[in-house]
Amino acid sequence: MNNFWLTLPTEIFFGKGQISVLGKTLKKEGCTKALLAYGHGSIKRNGVYDDIIKELDGHGIPFVELAGIDPNPRIKTVEAGARLCREEGVDFIIAAGAGSVIDCCKAIAAARYYSGDPWDFFTRKTSVKKVLPVCAVLTLAATGSEMNGGTVITNEATREKLSTGSIRMKPKFSILDPVYTFSVPKDQTAAGIADIMSHVFEQYFSCPDAVLQDLMSEAVLKTVIMSGPVAISEPDNYNARADIMWAGTVALNGLLGLGKDGDWATHLIEHELSAKYDITHGTGLAILTPRWMKKVLDTESAGKFARYGRNVWSIQGDDDMTVALQAIDRTGEFFSSLGIPSKLSELGIDSSRFEEMADSALKYSKIGRFRNLSRSDIIDIYRSSL
Amino acid sequence: MNNFWLTLPTEIFFGKGQISVLGKTLKKEGCTKALLAYGHGSIKRNGVYDDIIKELDGHGIPFVELAGIDPNPRIKTVEAGARLCREEGVDFIIAAGAGSVIDCCKAIAAARYYSGDPWDFFTRKTSVKKVLPVCAVLTLAATGSEMNGGTVITNEATREKLSTGSIRMKPKFSILDPVYTFSVPKDQTAAGIADIMSHVFEQYFSCPDAVLQDLMSEAVLKTVIMSGPVAISEPDNYNARADIMWAGTVALNGLLGLGKDGDWATHLIEHELSAKYDITHGTGLAILTPRWMKKVLDTESAGKFARYGRNVWSIQGDDDMTVALQAIDRTGEFFSSLGIPSKLSELGIDSSRFEEMADSALKYSKIGRFRNLSRSDIIDIYRSSL
Repeated sequence: MNNFWLTLPTEIFFGKGQISVLGKTLKKEGCTKALLAYGHGSIKRNGVYDDIIKELDGHGIPFVELAGIDPNPRIKTVEAGARLCREEGVDFIIAAGAGSVIDCCKAIAAARYYSGDPWDFFTRKTSVKKVLPVCAVLTLAATGSEMNGGTVITNEATREKLSTGSIRMKPKFSILDPVYTFSVPKDQTAAGIADIMSHVFEQYFSCPDAVLQDLMSEAVLKTVIMSGPVAISEPDNYNARADIMWAGTVALNGLLGLGKDGDWATHLIEHELSAKYDITHGTGLAILTPRWMKKVLDTESAGKFARYGRNVWSIQGDDDMTVALQAIDRTGEFFSSLGIPSKLSELGIDSSRFEEMADSALKYSKIGRFRNLSRSDIIDIYRSSL
Repeated sequence: MNNFWLTLPTEIFFGKGQISVLGKTLKKEGCTKALLAYGHGSIKRNGVYDDIIKELDGHGIPFVELAGIDPNPRIKTVEAGARLCREEGVDFIIAAGAGSVIDCCKAIAAARYYSGDPWDFFTRKTSVKKVLPVCAVLTLAATGSEMNGGTVITNEATREKLSTGSIRMKPKFSILDPVYTFSVPKDQTAAGIADIMSHVFEQYFSCPDAVLQDLMSEAVLKTVIMSGPVAISEPDNYNARADIMWAGTVALNGLLGLGKDGDWATHLIEHELSAKYDITHGTGLAILTPRWMKKVLDTESAGKFARYGRNVWSIQGDDDMTVALQAIDRTGEFFSSLGIPSKLSELGIDSSRFEEMADSALKYSKIGRFRNLSRSDIIDIYRSSL
């Protein structure tokens, strides 16, 4: 394996009722005024908002609110949030929601101390140097944002969806209560599972192989394949919700990709879809993934795909290519079994912008480290997903 | 799974040549004078000592040395080290060696700020409140001490070997260069592998089951079962050494036991052996483990042992008890294949002190959370290991 550097500074409080640590932990971290940021109000319906307010009030922590963060969070919201933090003297951000809320809050945390356009972080014009501390109260198993330093933001003006990352943006602590995900609808639960699996694929199908990391990747895949359908059919099943919640965190906290060059092609070409059509990221990933797999499958990569088929799906057979193709089919079938659309056309997307999206995807860098994708490769993948 | 709290503050620098970060990282952490602690000089023969000195001199960091830390480190050495740190104004400890050196340095780090007898930490008379920061330069894949807060120390006067732990004792950072383990002899490499596997067993055979953690435990076991024998037959095989080095860290950095009640019976009854007979910890574990497994195997636990057999050793068969027994045999055979003695009598240990050791093992607490062990159970395990 390649050399690596690992730092996991985010404290995790996992389990039922862990919200009870929020107030005292904020106090310990020196919080004197918080920003409470969330999405479109689901946390007000499922009790999470009330639990947080009780903690803040109970510990005498004043706060301001930023509501209405979108599923594909916008740079305009980042700007508004940073302004609010400056004006109100906020010294700690509470991100209460899914990955979109957490990503937005990380970007706000960095933008707070940056006098320029925060979009500069995403176009690589500047890097993150100073941030407000962030904590996450997670409400959806999906992005892993609760324990990593990444953020993905959409610029509506340019119709771009770009990512950036910094160790400084890793949350100080995150509260992961599986009960908070009981009310997540089936389609969002399914999209979250696809997102988790895609994060694993991006690191598993990469070079060089790393024995423990690849076995751990298979462990995460097997966990969500086993517990994901249970969480969808029994939304209140604590253990199933706990399994996918923790799997989602491990999938993207850095452990699986140690000493490997992650691929990330599927994510980058999906970002174009959700930037242009505002679709759910996990849904886009579920549609693109089997097509990406077929695109990069060749005699050289067949061994790794066959290993995936044998170890994760228990597919029997000696011929790598046959097992690999079956494994790819099983992947798509699994996403379909969760109720995820299997074609872009089901989302009302046609081929009219495929070339524009391919150009946009390639604007800032090459795509794909397991297999480099050309412009025409990307268009092929979009086209085969119709 | 049970609720859990996870914090992994130790930064890991993994790979060939990572010693080059030592000086600048110590400087960044505010080190003005270091204690360089090590064992009986193997680091002087394999170049590790010279590499460290070059880093310290290159960055103008003054240091004092503490040499001669024993494989089962003594409380007397802890006292001497703490005294040295006080007298010399040391503000950072560099633990260069295997788990014994790192454990000793953690205890020194805590004893530095404790005016009483440092053995009090181990008899639970006091807890760790303030420590000197520690970094580890690891030279053996085994204990996982490089990324956890535990320490095990031997008191020669009382012939006790006891452990304690604190998040405060987790190393600030650790340097893991697989090349530094090329010169580890076969018997120590083998004992290290047994130690790693035992750490996994203590967390895997525990309640409640946790889907991802148990799959990750199997991943660690499969890694060392695959790469361990390679490291023994080809001591300079970088990838094999890297695999077991990282597996050793993951085995005991907290991830595998999250939300589970670890068993730790085998470790506790082994500590009596190495306290009384000063044997290598991993060797003792390898001898006791299959006997512990057979002792706690019953109709209720057979399912978990059979799962272990099927998932880790690929044993076929529908009958849990049959597969479980085969899995236990395979475990013992694997240790033997690494050249580890399979009987206590091979180490010159007879039954004369078994009752004394059982009493000593039970002195501070009950033993075994997967299966509680009585005094006679412990004696049975020792006896069956003769």
